[in-house]
Amino acid sequence: HKPVDVAEYLFTRLHQIGIRSVHGLPGDFNLVALDYVPKAGLKWVGSVNELNAAYAADGYARVKGISALVTTFGVGELSAINGVAGAFSEHVPIVHIVGCPSTISQRNGMLLHHTLGTGDFNVYADMNAPISCEVARLNKPSEIADQIDHTLRECWIRSRPVYIMLPTDMVQKKLEGQRLDTPIDLSEPKNEEEREDYVVDVVLKYLHAAKNPIILVDACAVRHRVLEEVHDLVEKTQLPVFVTPMGKSAINETHATYGGVYAGNGSQPEVAARVEAADLVLSIGSLKSDFNTAGFSYRTSQLNTIDFHSTHCVVRYSEYPGVHMKGVLRKIVDRVDVSKLPRTSSPPVVNKVSENLDDSQTITQAWFWPRFGEFLKENDIVVTETGTANFGIWETKFPAGVTGLNQTLWGSIGWSVGATQGAALAAVDMGTDRRTVLLVGDGSFQLACQEVSTIVRHNLHVTIFLIYNEGFTIERWIHGMDAEYNDITRWKYTEIPSAFGASPENVKTYVVKTKDCLEKLLTNEEFNKAKGLQFVELWMPKEDAPRALKITAEISAKTNAKTE
Amino acid sequence: HKPVDVAEYLFTRLHQIGIRSVHGLPGDFNLVALDYVPKAGLKWVGSVNELNAAYAADGYARVKGISALVTTFGVGELSAINGVAGAFSEHVPIVHIVGCPSTISQRNGMLLHHTLGTGDFNVYADMNAPISCEVARLNKPSEIADQIDHTLRECWIRSRPVYIMLPTDMVQKKLEGQRLDTPIDLSEPKNEEEREDYVVDVVLKYLHAAKNPIILVDACAVRHRVLEEVHDLVEKTQLPVFVTPMGKSAINETHATYGGVYAGNGSQPEVAARVEAADLVLSIGSLKSDFNTAGFSYRTSQLNTIDFHSTHCVVRYSEYPGVHMKGVLRKIVDRVDVSKLPRTSSPPVVNKVSENLDDSQTITQAWFWPRFGEFLKENDIVVTETGTANFGIWETKFPAGVTGLNQTLWGSIGWSVGATQGAALAAVDMGTDRRTVLLVGDGSFQLACQEVSTIVRHNLHVTIFLIYNEGFTIERWIHGMDAEYNDITRWKYTEIPSAFGASPENVKTYVVKTKDCLEKLLTNEEFNKAKGLQFVELWMPKEDAPRALKITAEISAKTNAKTE
Ligand SMILES: Cc1ncc(C[n+]2csc(CCOP(=O)(O)OP(=O)(O)O)c2C)c(N)n1
Ligand SMILES: Cc1ncc(C[n+]2csc(CCOP(=O)(O)OP(=O)(O)O)c2C)c(N)n1
Ligand SMILES: [Mg+2]
Ligand SMILES: [Mg+2]
Repeated sequence: HKPVDVAEYLFTRLHQIGIRSVHGLPGDFNLVALDYVPKAGLKWVGSVNELNAAYAADGYARVKGISALVTTFGVGELSAINGVAGAFSEHVPIVHIVGCPSTISQRNGMLLHHTLGTGDFNVYADMNAPISCEVARLNKPSEIADQIDHTLRECWIRSRPVYIMLPTDMVQKKLEGQRLDTPIDLSEPKNEEEREDYVVDVVLKYLHAAKNPIILVDACAVRHRVLEEVHDLVEKTQLPVFVTPMGKSAINETHATYGGVYAGNGSQPEVAARVEAADLVLSIGSLKSDFNTAGFSYRTSQLNTIDFHSTHCVVRYSEYPGVHMKGVLRKIVDRVDVSKLPRTSSPPVVNKVSENLDDSQTITQAWFWPRFGEFLKENDIVVTETGTANFGIWETKFPAGVTGLNQTLWGSIGWSVGATQGAALAAVDMGTDRRTVLLVGDGSFQLACQEVSTIVRHNLHVTIFLIYNEGFTIERWIHGMDAEYNDITRWKYTEIPSAFGASPENVKTYVVKTKDCLEKLLTNEEFNKAKGLQFVELWMPKEDAPRALKITAEISAKTNAKTE
Repeated sequence: HKPVDVAEYLFTRLHQIGIRSVHGLPGDFNLVALDYVPKAGLKWVGSVNELNAAYAADGYARVKGISALVTTFGVGELSAINGVAGAFSEHVPIVHIVGCPSTISQRNGMLLHHTLGTGDFNVYADMNAPISCEVARLNKPSEIADQIDHTLRECWIRSRPVYIMLPTDMVQKKLEGQRLDTPIDLSEPKNEEEREDYVVDVVLKYLHAAKNPIILVDACAVRHRVLEEVHDLVEKTQLPVFVTPMGKSAINETHATYGGVYAGNGSQPEVAARVEAADLVLSIGSLKSDFNTAGFSYRTSQLNTIDFHSTHCVVRYSEYPGVHMKGVLRKIVDRVDVSKLPRTSSPPVVNKVSENLDDSQTITQAWFWPRFGEFLKENDIVVTETGTANFGIWETKFPAGVTGLNQTLWGSIGWSVGATQGAALAAVDMGTDRRTVLLVGDGSFQLACQEVSTIVRHNLHVTIFLIYNEGFTIERWIHGMDAEYNDITRWKYTEIPSAFGASPENVKTYVVKTKDCLEKLLTNEEFNKAKGLQFVELWMPKEDAPRALKITAEISAKTNAKTE
């Protein structure tokens, strides 16, 4: 019998499931709980605001597997809610812990600060419910250990945020600590065997019969942790494999059968041709949102498609609810008869630098992204923001081991700045020495700029390319090319790191206006080492946009304008 | 017959009810609507992020009466939601307009960016419902004009945010423009006459019998627009009048019968003594939250209290639901027999500068706030942030005409920075030339710092005193005096305005570490003119706090810690 306090139990569980740093801000309803963070071996990040903290927790979870966010009742949690909603939308597991008034104050309906003045203490939990896969109100000591264990398991398994409401008077209630000796079961629930075998047989039947099958890997393959199965499948079958924009970096892009990024009309022509000629698409973890498909412009047929999901599988039009892709993929790897598979080829993928070179010194979107690909090294973490960056990166070929992060479905600008901090910190927490490189528009950067301060606070190795193109270029391409609302205030961006506390030893800043200047920087040895914070103001033309963005923007504008 | 587009109708209505500037950010679901902003004679603010935009809209509404906020579906509106919740909590009318996907896309359940991927397009409206006094989904052209007029009226009358969901395909639907010739009726609903007279008689009976009556003015007197009635009442009766922290600046503090700030144990002793000796408290628009009452430490009795509210009145324990204070107060002014009122006196209110002077050069909280009061001029706008500032300001006597803004109930840090921008802009929009002075803690400032950029963009006359005390002092006093989580990163605050685009002509920065230095600054002629942005890093001791904060923090900590 070893009693532990609720907060100690909770934070110890966080540590056990792999979390090492906790994002968030203090508030008087969580202060006592925060005393337990270091006790559980966790680092307190000390975020600058709750929205950034949520973005950072999102980035942390994408690299480390799961993350935690602590906020205070009302003001803190609602500041974070857009970031948590993004994690819900994009299947990222964040444990959101909200310190709230004591159950006594709640019962008495006290008119406390951070309330709406209505006496309703559940209203924020209710607002959080639609963006959380589980809501736990820790109100009864006898239930708390079960609630915590169950909630953390749900977070992991369903790969989405959970919401935990921790009243001040529960923080130091005693729980049975012996439970902590048994780790939370995070194993994927097994599929019903007969059903799973049935699906595998059907898939193999089609696969063995196909003349021209390909594999297409999308976001949910990453988020629902089937990359090992996917890699084994690619390795064993040597089938051509493509990724979607949200699936980018799921596949080693130097692999012989890697064929590029497929996004319908937004694809490179040879990629579109190859994918659309397939007589079987093994579509893994697909998430066919507008921007991920260049405006729903796929030209593949469901009759030629097998969909693998975390909650079900679909073979052509036959649905198999409740069958998780993980078990199915593993058995396909084990049972596929490679002698029955055709030997086909993939389009070669290279960074098309010279093809996109013109004879001006202007840094064009067309030239930059392939050139940037040549700068990247193995195991870099590359974060791109909604805007020209998220579409430009489609033209960047990654070295092996690169992790690419984007938020293409949710698309909340500012996300990337927080996510970069979280991702870089996760790399440190994993004991790895990776460069984290952010590509962010000037507009987006402004929303979340103070996250640079957290990068500085933890002395993270982050390189920021701020795309200086005088405003909201992506929006200009959708509507209002010259509209005032697409303009932003001209900041002196390179002064930002210093203002946020960076000392000259910890930060290097650059302004890059020409191709030559960029060449010099990208080949500079010091710059390549990327120690500390490096901040590059990168000039690109105001009205220039990547090919795929122009296509997608036009379709978006049409969808918006369509009337009956 | 003159058809107008929905967006033109909406923005014209905003102009008619007094809005001149619109806060917010573009997003592809609101771009076309934004084209109508200048057409309706409105200025687009071009905010830096949605939370700041909401804070700024809050500040704007507190000065101008009402404000507008435009965001985009999901990502934008949820970023703003904490700011809007604050306006709900504090009775501030903001018209929140959210550009959302077309009704066609919604019906088809398209997997669009900014969705949760669940096909539910009403989920954000549902999340907004608890913090909005009206939700309008503009989905049917035939209903839209009525919806808009009704929603704007509710916003004004109930003095709380409303939420308007504007699908892209509705923006240019035609409405009957002739409606615009008739302004929206914003008049307060009249009380039922017999009932109102009854309440007035009861009040007058007690008032005429009282030996020692006083008036206490709180937040809702300001927000529900009865200050004219209150001023007339004070003028006619010459009764001692006090304000609560949230009611501060509702009363001309140079008025002969003004007696100071009452907040129970947090009051100056002579104020507490005077208020608690009253045999009748005319309590107008009270909002007795923890921080507004120094931890529920009033020592007045309901048996001696008459409460005037926007939805009801209470005389001792007799309740009069549905009776709005406005009509009642007016009739009291008209019908009170001043010959029956006692002539009593109020404690004199002065800025106690010399009393709080010590012989060190350290700028103490005790000395600063009265000294700051001597710096203020008539008609200044003074914004204080949650933290030491919100409690310190209790010790500041305002000149006549000063508007004090604080967010004592909601207490979301960062609010003040946005609110300052909005308030200063409102002053400009009203054609007045007022100084706007912000007092904000270093911790709070970090959350919303980029709002300085908007202040610069519009060249607003704002003076910022950043209280540099190395972190979250208010939290230290509640719990964790030396805890790491109460520390923040040391920024170079005075570099911030330049980084955010201010040119040397538009900004002056100062670092003030001593009393002498502060004296010099506060008496400097240029500084007093306060043109453009002035930014003062003001050093105060890390562990120093205003008297009232220490009291309130202790009670808060106890309330949090209480267990059963
Ligand atoms: C929180 C939030 N607010 C508004 C938007 C709408 N939005 C999408 S992209 C964008 C502009 C991004 O501009 P920038 O970062 O400069 O990118 P670029 O110029 O490279 O396209 C805006 C305003 C959004 N997606 N998220
Ligand atoms: C959005 C939000 N996050 C967190 C809090 C909790 N909180 C209240 S006051 C405060 C510290 C304020 O510190 P500072 O602005 O430096 O004020 P001071 O040091 O003068 O007390 C914090 C973190 C809050 N009220 N709102
Ligand atoms: Mg840009
Ligand atoms: Mg401080």
